[in-house]
Amino acid sequence: MIKGPGVIRIYEVGLRDGLQIQKKILTTDEKLALVKSLIKAGCKDIQATSFVHPRLVPQLADAEELIQNTEKPESVRLWALVPNERGIERAAKCSNLFGVSIVLSASDSHNISNIRMKTSESLAKLPVLFAAARSAGLIVRVELATSFGCPFEGAVPIERIIDIARVVYDLKADHLALADTTGMADPMLVAQRVQAVHAAVPGLKLSGHFHNTRGAGMANTLAAWQAGVDIFDASFGGLGGCPFAPGATGNVATEDMVHMFHQMGVETHTDLNELIKTAQKAQAFFGFELPGQVMKAGPASKLHNLGYEGND
Amino acid sequence: MIKGPGVIRIYEVGLRDGLQIQKKILTTDEKLALVKSLIKAGCKDIQATSFVHPRLVPQLADAEELIQNTEKPESVRLWALVPNERGIERAAKCSNLFGVSIVLSASDSHNISNIRMKTSESLAKLPVLFAAARSAGLIVRVELATSFGCPFEGAVPIERIIDIARVVYDLKADHLALADTTGMADPMLVAQRVQAVHAAVPGLKLSGHFHNTRGAGMANTLAAWQAGVDIFDASFGGLGGCPFAPGATGNVATEDMVHMFHQMGVETHTDLNELIKTAQKAQAFFGFELPGQVMKAGPASKLHNLGYEGND
Repeated sequence: MIKGPGVIRIYEVGLRDGLQIQKKILTTDEKLALVKSLIKAGCKDIQATSFVHPRLVPQLADAEELIQNTEKPESVRLWALVPNERGIERAAKCSNLFGVSIVLSASDSHNISNIRMKTSESLAKLPVLFAAARSAGLIVRVELATSFGCPFEGAVPIERIIDIARVVYDLKADHLALADTTGMADPMLVAQRVQAVHAAVPGLKLSGHFHNTRGAGMANTLAAWQAGVDIFDASFGGLGGCPFAPGATGNVATEDMVHMFHQMGVETHTDLNELIKTAQKAQAFFGFELPGQVMKAGPASKLHNLGYEGND
Repeated sequence: MIKGPGVIRIYEVGLRDGLQIQKKILTTDEKLALVKSLIKAGCKDIQATSFVHPRLVPQLADAEELIQNTEKPESVRLWALVPNERGIERAAKCSNLFGVSIVLSASDSHNISNIRMKTSESLAKLPVLFAAARSAGLIVRVELATSFGCPFEGAVPIERIIDIARVVYDLKADHLALADTTGMADPMLVAQRVQAVHAAVPGLKLSGHFHNTRGAGMANTLAAWQAGVDIFDASFGGLGGCPFAPGATGNVATEDMVHMFHQMGVETHTDLNELIKTAQKAQAFFGFELPGQVMKAGPASKLHNLGYEGND
């Protein structure tokens, strides 16, 4: 009954999705230390930054410097989010970059809010963006925001997701990330949408990008995995958040996700202890408690000495 | 693929499992306000306290007073945890009490730590405890701690769970709560254990009691529901914790669980908004941030005005 892929690929987004709304600006050296720690933990796909305008996201103003100064083995793939042509132009100049993640939203109002055009206009631009990225030797994935609901519009019709998935597949993207931007998904919806996209566009690989805004991030991860998804976006320490939900968490914490998958016998090719160290490092840099749980409790395999008086 | 019972029963344990390790002692009036709020939210099963020795759990020293002073309609069932005969003696004097939840642990070392005897000794005592409770007109359920792993011993053989489940069934308990005391379960293990118990003891109703210590509480809830469980222990605001995991959360937050189930079309017979108010009330009493997410973000159905600059 509980079954899914035996190996999953972690796509670490903490340095982008986790950092972007943080007010405290980390130094490039601190970010480099986090990338180094992720690499030591075995992460192969690291979305390290975003080529957005520094005025919009001051935290990521050092995008080029961070990418170019990262020391990494060939096997580690550095990614950056790009919202538009200008982003790809900047990405194209970074020889150390493996790929770009082009973002658009399934709902018009979120797309307008985020990149100032309707979804159909973004979709029409995708071939040009793909071509520009490819001419710079960059691999492309697409992140589809509001795939499970829009904070402005509510429900998002599945047809919109499928139409975009078809375009993304025809453009031969590495994969499509279905993003639950503000934590509106539930496991039933996740299973239904993944199955619908797989049925309509059988060759397209999907990533699950879940925010824990309403506590269902891990349950949604489980549902996506059961439905066959084998790539998962995650953020060290669960760093992140949402401007609409003060105190609510960000993406699913990488180390919590890896802990759950390892317990179920699913391979992630990452080292849990090093992931915990990365989360703790980030927590030290920010100076506030991150929402990740395993970074506090340690793995379930860590046993204790007798003396607990609790009940259950 | 994602399916389970269409109706679930929430068994609220916040006033017991949530409160018991809190250092700040709530007044009986504050606790009564929380019970009242839970009743307004539609909760029918409320575990309001524990008849443990006040020296061990000073927070619950007002057990009798709380139970007897609760104003409630007939349809609301007040429960108390009891560890031993002395607890049942105290429970028997509370005319307002519906039932007792007898606790024992599946692992010897946790049982010894908790109630100072081996599991087999606790099991041998169950008939006497059941008889004592029944002679006082009390309904009985059993909470089986460390059902998915023991913080002292590690893995707990499924045979131990099944042997206990058989005894509990023969004694005609209302149901058996399988408790993941320190958050060691994973969804695969949950599904396997629920299926194994259902197969071995088909008539026995089960409750899932999951702690979110390692972030998998909601995923484990989902797995148990998919495997057929239709009763779930939960704690308002996710109040609780674990002496071994500073900063780690307690039980799954009632309102997060209810939010997820309602989104999936599963009936809980509770009012989400009132549950959120209960969690916020508890947060105000304690004066620190509770781990519940929906109490911060609001339900997914609450839409926002345009203006968000985030990416995904």
